[in-house]
Amino acid sequence: MRGAVIHAPGDVRFETLDDPKILMPTDAIIRTAVTCVCGSDLWPWRGLDATDEAHPMGHEYVGFVEEVGAEVTSVKPGQFVVGSFATSDNTCANCRNGWQSNCLNREFMSTCQAEYVRIPNAQGTLVATDEVPGEEFWPGLLAVSDVMGTGWYAADAAEVRPGSTAVVVGDGAVGLCAVIAAKEMGAERIIVMSRHETRQRLARAFGATDIVTERGDEGIARIRELTGGIGADSVLECVGTAQAMRQALHSTRPGGNVGFVGVPHEVRIDGQELFFSHVGLRGGPAPVRRYLPDLIDRVLTGRISPGKVFDLTLPLEQVAEGYEAMDERRAIKTLLKP
Amino acid sequence: MRGAVIHAPGDVRFETLDDPKILMPTDAIIRTAVTCVCGSDLWPWRGLDATDEAHPMGHEYVGFVEEVGAEVTSVKPGQFVVGSFATSDNTCANCRNGWQSNCLNREFMSTCQAEYVRIPNAQGTLVATDEVPGEEFWPGLLAVSDVMGTGWYAADAAEVRPGSTAVVVGDGAVGLCAVIAAKEMGAERIIVMSRHETRQRLARAFGATDIVTERGDEGIARIRELTGGIGADSVLECVGTAQAMRQALHSTRPGGNVGFVGVPHEVRIDGQELFFSHVGLRGGPAPVRRYLPDLIDRVLTGRISPGKVFDLTLPLEQVAEGYEAMDERRAIKTLLKP
Repeated sequence: MRGAVIHAPGDVRFETLDDPKILMPTDAIIRTAVTCVCGSDLWPWRGLDATDEAHPMGHEYVGFVEEVGAEVTSVKPGQFVVGSFATSDNTCANCRNGWQSNCLNREFMSTCQAEYVRIPNAQGTLVATDEVPGEEFWPGLLAVSDVMGTGWYAADAAEVRPGSTAVVVGDGAVGLCAVIAAKEMGAERIIVMSRHETRQRLARAFGATDIVTERGDEGIARIRELTGGIGADSVLECVGTAQAMRQALHSTRPGGNVGFVGVPHEVRIDGQELFFSHVGLRGGPAPVRRYLPDLIDRVLTGRISPGKVFDLTLPLEQVAEGYEAMDERRAIKTLLKP
Repeated sequence: MRGAVIHAPGDVRFETLDDPKILMPTDAIIRTAVTCVCGSDLWPWRGLDATDEAHPMGHEYVGFVEEVGAEVTSVKPGQFVVGSFATSDNTCANCRNGWQSNCLNREFMSTCQAEYVRIPNAQGTLVATDEVPGEEFWPGLLAVSDVMGTGWYAADAAEVRPGSTAVVVGDGAVGLCAVIAAKEMGAERIIVMSRHETRQRLARAFGATDIVTERGDEGIARIRELTGGIGADSVLECVGTAQAMRQALHSTRPGGNVGFVGVPHEVRIDGQELFFSHVGLRGGPAPVRRYLPDLIDRVLTGRISPGKVFDLTLPLEQVAEGYEAMDERRAIKTLLKP
């Protein structure tokens, strides 16, 4: 089969690779329906995460079950399945508590920009749809496997409540999905920090009520101005930089909550500052599996359309161009078709 | 009148001071019934917080209203009142959200180890009891004005739920009150980290089910051993050091919560570590005013007895001995009688 391999910053190649095989009785092999490039894939592409040796890429997928290991009974060959970037047995103590992305047997997916993918912990990870959904739903379901699930978690961790005010820091695909989530959870006011017109438009289409283009202290001042001087009830931090975290913490009202889902890069939080802010803080890789049945349903009933974050579609073999377009901000998110 | 003044580390004197006066129409003057020494008073006593110039001390109080300003209608002279170490108007946006210790007009109390005290924001801060309670209730009500309210907030911020497992880091008066709070909120298992026998006994009397004497990595390992290998649902951090925070974060299960109420001294939290832990974190000066009516009721009905944390009672004029006894760990907490 063929798939994407990163060799060095800026060097992603579409190569012939060994077909994945069942290695454990809990594995499944899927044939990829669609896959995509994630904002977090840009960290190694940009050289901000090291690439010590060449390795496959990709952690988002929907597809058709090809083969299952002896212990997998929940899905069967031919079914259309949605999973998560973090696999989970869905039976351990952490899974039972709803933290499947901290499963004691977790494996992070990392080979999904390919024609076929091995899914560890298939039983606890994959959710099959009742029937094979029309192709028009595939992008939305693909989004659910990562960015939509992550945006949902940001809103959940930030405790968005009906009637509340939410701020979304970051206008990437996760930030835009976070707008969808905040809207679904009943936020009355959704303020998005964004400087890019196409993203602002999509944010508004998803439910944003206000756009703040200022950043740093000016951005914080603007948010406070929009929130009665005290800050927002919930802030959804969808970037992962120290600046974004600072902006999030200072835009939250006393007793409000920050949900942070951008993988933090060199973020340090001062204990005394957090203390006197009374802000609640929770982050992490989203427990997508917990949300899958609900989010799949919302997509298939047309209630939410997170697939709109894909504004560039390429054949899988042009994966490198998909990275480049996102790196240069020509695309919000690239869908790849095998 | 007379009251305590700190001049330098280890140098607290009982001196003649000006009688406090109504300065603002929202003030009240109270005659102190009982007051006490707080664990946080030991920071300047030990020289860990600077004392640039001599100043009065103390932020815990219950007493009798002597005089009220023109705008104070909720309490009247002669009434017995309980307050909070942080004053609040109880009408601003933060107060309405339940975060009275972040009131836009907040003033922290700092002159309470004295015969008379001026209470700013009296209307929104003081709660009068229906009648003057018997002296046997005064220590408990005094505890409510700070350490019991703070322990309650630790449990609240750590989201203690019925049937859950809670860990209390710190066996000072706040930690011991946190045990009471965790018990009242229905924690089934309450593990206290303590090395001091008298404190362990009191912790058990308050509802602790397990004592862990190990600290640092050994303490964390012991907690994990006691909690099915994954950590506790809720951890109540009642110290404020970097070591205590580290212990708290590493003793919490994925998706669990840390409530931190020890004022952080040189605590830095690594964003990426917090991210992958999935732990929720909230701290701050306790919004005691939110809890006052409920906690006063629990004390007066005998449901809780936080007054037991006072294991040394001295006349107010021996306030310095009260500091010394706590510094040397001869006393958990010193009650002072004017």
